[in-house]
Amino acid sequence: MAPAQRRPGVSVSPQLAAGEPGTARIAVDLLGGDSAPAVVVDGALRACQADPALHLLLVGPAEAADEFLDALDPAEHGRVTRMPIAPGERVESWVESGVRSAVLAVAQGEADAVVSAGNTGATVTSAALGLGRWPGVRRPPLAAVLPTRAGRLVLLDVGSSVDPDEETMATHARLGAAYAYVVHDVAAPAVGLLTIGTERGKGDRLRRALPPALAALALPGGARYAGLVEGNDVVTGTVADVVVTDGFTGNILLKGLEAAYAELGPPSTATGAPPPRAALLLGVAGTVVVCHGAASGPDVAAGIAFAADLHRRAAVAAMADMIDAQRGV
Amino acid sequence: MAPAQRRPGVSVSPQLAAGEPGTARIAVDLLGGDSAPAVVVDGALRACQADPALHLLLVGPAEAADEFLDALDPAEHGRVTRMPIAPGERVESWVESGVRSAVLAVAQGEADAVVSAGNTGATVTSAALGLGRWPGVRRPPLAAVLPTRAGRLVLLDVGSSVDPDEETMATHARLGAAYAYVVHDVAAPAVGLLTIGTERGKGDRLRRALPPALAALALPGGARYAGLVEGNDVVTGTVADVVVTDGFTGNILLKGLEAAYAELGPPSTATGAPPPRAALLLGVAGTVVVCHGAASGPDVAAGIAFAADLHRRAAVAAMADMIDAQRGV
Repeated sequence: MAPAQRRPGVSVSPQLAAGEPGTARIAVDLLGGDSAPAVVVDGALRACQADPALHLLLVGPAEAADEFLDALDPAEHGRVTRMPIAPGERVESWVESGVRSAVLAVAQGEADAVVSAGNTGATVTSAALGLGRWPGVRRPPLAAVLPTRAGRLVLLDVGSSVDPDEETMATHARLGAAYAYVVHDVAAPAVGLLTIGTERGKGDRLRRALPPALAALALPGGARYAGLVEGNDVVTGTVADVVVTDGFTGNILLKGLEAAYAELGPPSTATGAPPPRAALLLGVAGTVVVCHGAASGPDVAAGIAFAADLHRRAAVAAMADMIDAQRGV
Repeated sequence: MAPAQRRPGVSVSPQLAAGEPGTARIAVDLLGGDSAPAVVVDGALRACQADPALHLLLVGPAEAADEFLDALDPAEHGRVTRMPIAPGERVESWVESGVRSAVLAVAQGEADAVVSAGNTGATVTSAALGLGRWPGVRRPPLAAVLPTRAGRLVLLDVGSSVDPDEETMATHARLGAAYAYVVHDVAAPAVGLLTIGTERGKGDRLRRALPPALAALALPGGARYAGLVEGNDVVTGTVADVVVTDGFTGNILLKGLEAAYAELGPPSTATGAPPPRAALLLGVAGTVVVCHGAASGPDVAAGIAFAADLHRRAAVAAMADMIDAQRGV
């Protein structure tokens, strides 16, 4: 990530600026997830073995990091740094200190991205406080990507803001548009609002109130508001590239569809391999990837590979620049 | 349906009481649905041809009913009654008069059940006013059935109450339990509350407040509250037989999963054919089946067959009796 691409106000440490080209240093929260640390250690090993330019910062109990190193070829140990976290008085605060420390490592330039399968709320709060939010972002949303026959669809929010107001939903639309443009290379993304029917008067209070505000919103990347969409449109991907919803509905739909695709195989898509079962936190000054609490080892590995790819493409800085430029219009 | 099984306060017409055994008289709303009347006529024909004991009351434009009769073997015309509806001043009120008239036919004993693919709100309101609600039911929920590897799962509400309060959600739980017991023959159904995480503090305001009330609720059919479930549990069916949610979330998840199953094939289930893509309105004194607005001809046919089956099993009366008996405890 070149210094010129960084967000204003976020300092770049000499270590980060000096990172070798192609290298991605990922801080992995060993304590996050229902089956932590075992599943996280497994996923980190898979990721490490698949990507020789990956460096891992293992944040968590010393024993889990030791277990990881025991399983890794000693010739590769130079790619791994341990950041031991000692158990605190309360299990909860100990677990959450893992993601806080991982975020801090990114803020201090010791890592390029964070990956956690831990509590979403703790991750969002840690990232917002530790990395800072982009101007105008109140509650950073989590953006997931679903495979569709048409390609890839960005669904947000999927668990960060469960009772959002209109302004937060409008921010989701702007951030989602930037995501589709930068990460999926979609020119002029179509942004839809998820609801339960396209007739007038359908939907809950929030959805009935939102369409005029979204239609009037200036969106980055030449994106346009494509109107109301329904659950089936998230599967087909034919109406919108980005689907905006509250974190409650989005999380439930995401988990339902991911389970269906796990059971039946994903829709055959033109863009190759299915996207990782991991979400990107948008609107914070750093790359933060969130895996499901119930993530498998391969899911964690895919989340780490996703974080490394985003870092190598300087995707978060590019999105931030788009949002900034669009705000200036 | 024997008179003794009817809800108190609902009169039974001599016609209905005199219905031949096995016969099912279904009032079909020809005007309901995005592609009405063509798709409804197609579906009604398919249903008629598949079930020789089916009688149809075709409610809608005379031309659509004529089109239906033209396509049907004249020897079968005795199984069809036309109930013409003349266009009103406003298209909207004309369309809604279709479902109102179909409901009225059931209330007056001229039909055993209603099938409509029209506006959900209009159907729910027509049914609540025309047939009456069961005691304690404020807003009748729509219950859909999804195939799972474990069998069949009842999801409710899927579009009737988009901003429900706690009491309405508790009613969903009771009605859903009765549905699983009566229609799916599940002894002691497990009833789950759909949310986005099982840790304390997860979910929106409604979901955080509800669990104690649901845990304390007396449920019919020996049902038990099985706690919080997530989107993936609706796919697997391993945690709950009945999943309770608001109509907004339920509709989005239902449409998403149905689209996924249409694309990829439904999960292989132990119980044979996949359930119809149609929902039953619960808590009203009559059998009202709602198809999607975007229903296909086969979907409408499946909805009609479903309504006929429910009538033949006197399922709605059996559910009402269960709810009554449980209220008496």
